[in-house]
Amino acid sequence: MFKIPDHQVAGHQASSGIMGPLVDDSGLFFKPLQKDERGSKEVAFYKSFSSNTKVPDKIRSFFPAFHGTRDIPASDGSGLHPHLVLEDLISNYENPTIVDIKIGSRTWYPQASEDYIQRCFKKDRETSSLALGFRISGLQIHVSQKAGYWKPERKFLQNSSAEKVKIILKKFVSSNASADSDVDDLDCVFAPSVYGGTNGILAQLLELKTWFENQKFYHFYSSSVLMVYDKESALETKSNPAIKLVDFAHVVDSSGVIDHNFLGGLCSLIQLISEVLTVCPDCLDKTCLPCTDNGLNCNDDGSDR
Amino acid sequence: MFKIPDHQVAGHQASSGIMGPLVDDSGLFFKPLQKDERGSKEVAFYKSFSSNTKVPDKIRSFFPAFHGTRDIPASDGSGLHPHLVLEDLISNYENPTIVDIKIGSRTWYPQASEDYIQRCFKKDRETSSLALGFRISGLQIHVSQKAGYWKPERKFLQNSSAEKVKIILKKFVSSNASADSDVDDLDCVFAPSVYGGTNGILAQLLELKTWFENQKFYHFYSSSVLMVYDKESALETKSNPAIKLVDFAHVVDSSGVIDHNFLGGLCSLIQLISEVLTVCPDCLDKTCLPCTDNGLNCNDDGSDR
Repeated sequence: MFKIPDHQVAGHQASSGIMGPLVDDSGLFFKPLQKDERGSKEVAFYKSFSSNTKVPDKIRSFFPAFHGTRDIPASDGSGLHPHLVLEDLISNYENPTIVDIKIGSRTWYPQASEDYIQRCFKKDRETSSLALGFRISGLQIHVSQKAGYWKPERKFLQNSSAEKVKIILKKFVSSNASADSDVDDLDCVFAPSVYGGTNGILAQLLELKTWFENQKFYHFYSSSVLMVYDKESALETKSNPAIKLVDFAHVVDSSGVIDHNFLGGLCSLIQLISEVLTVCPDCLDKTCLPCTDNGLNCNDDGSDR
Repeated sequence: MFKIPDHQVAGHQASSGIMGPLVDDSGLFFKPLQKDERGSKEVAFYKSFSSNTKVPDKIRSFFPAFHGTRDIPASDGSGLHPHLVLEDLISNYENPTIVDIKIGSRTWYPQASEDYIQRCFKKDRETSSLALGFRISGLQIHVSQKAGYWKPERKFLQNSSAEKVKIILKKFVSSNASADSDVDDLDCVFAPSVYGGTNGILAQLLELKTWFENQKFYHFYSSSVLMVYDKESALETKSNPAIKLVDFAHVVDSSGVIDHNFLGGLCSLIQLISEVLTVCPDCLDKTCLPCTDNGLNCNDDGSDR
């Protein structure tokens, strides 16, 4: 009844002798509580967030629904272990194309131990976090029924330059993307329906950004934005692109300040996606871009006047 | 003909034996070139910026006008020394109330020397930079003709908590601010005309933010936003609040990424000023706030619908 998820792109993954998340067939995702304070911190976050009535519904929809904790048999065969019970974000997708992006140029928080700070500091400098304000932690692109998925290694992803990230973001929405596809040939056919439009990923990221410009509940360190869609649906123009925030073992209180570290990284990602969207062949007239002009030239539906 | 400026609140200040900036009576500000690469980097920035035709006029107005370099007698009596010739930002103010805010949770850039990085890293953690995304480097508040200026020490300013920054930002726009003024009594009478409205400091900061969301020319490390106004003018409702960016010895190329470090800190400052503005007695109906709702509910003039 519990099984290892088919489509995990980052984080600890279950395998023989290693405890990892499980899913069931009712759309639930079971994440084993880490034994140190990370486990209790993540539970504390989900409890706080799910009972926080000041979070707008739209913003709440960007987070996995929380169904408490439960002791279930661990994936490593070590017996019962407490798990977070969450919404399985991927269960509704047939052949999900997914990217996991760890947001923030800094993954550590001032209250952490000096040892933890130094380890994160080193990693942030070695990867693209420092330069870009985020790093790509995982990616899978559904190439075709026959070829299956392209799933590059994390090392390849997490220290990409801005140029390389733009290529990855183009591949993410191209029908002809694979490890060795020629950059100049990427067709970006899914860009308008996946990144663009009023319900696309860019519009969702902009909504998240607006919340982060003001929210002073939480600071999110080492959390990721997942972006996911299904190519089959996108082709049928029943596009279902979504963003989801995940991984909250390092969320801390805001102390009365916005999360400028997360916000800065999010803005950097938004800018790069906007740029990909404007160079995509189907978007050269910019009709795919949601209105971002601080509103002065926006229609009520968010499009440009 | 050259004299030491009356109203410098941060940075190296001229005094006997110490080289510092000078002004003349024609509205020019002479900043001595630092002898190491900082001097040449700042000149390079001003040259690049002043010839960059892609910078909008409104954004350009937030920077000091650049008039080249000139050898003039240094303030420390050591003879001729090369100086940047800049616009004297303060010359039009009778009794300027000024704050200097160094923007960014991180004041170092990846390409810097390890020694420089470690020194900045330590300072950023010791001051409020890490927590707030900025630190206050200098402040002078014109109290009255009789009492003159209140000019607290830098140590008091630069590691302020969010709560303390909000008090400083309230004092900045109060007619009854001084070292020992009671926080609850601060009248914030200048808030609507200085922070608020379509030409106020908040609207200017929002314009700057919009530029930073997209500009990929420069990354500004250790640069400051100056906010300045004249209480006398504000009382006569000839309000002349202005923001100016200063200190460009650590500007580097963007490498195709927005300056998420500066942008994050700027957003943090904007949020705190917005908050001060909404709690000021004259602003409780929010009419002082420029429209910030990503535009969907904005009028053409930037006010809320």
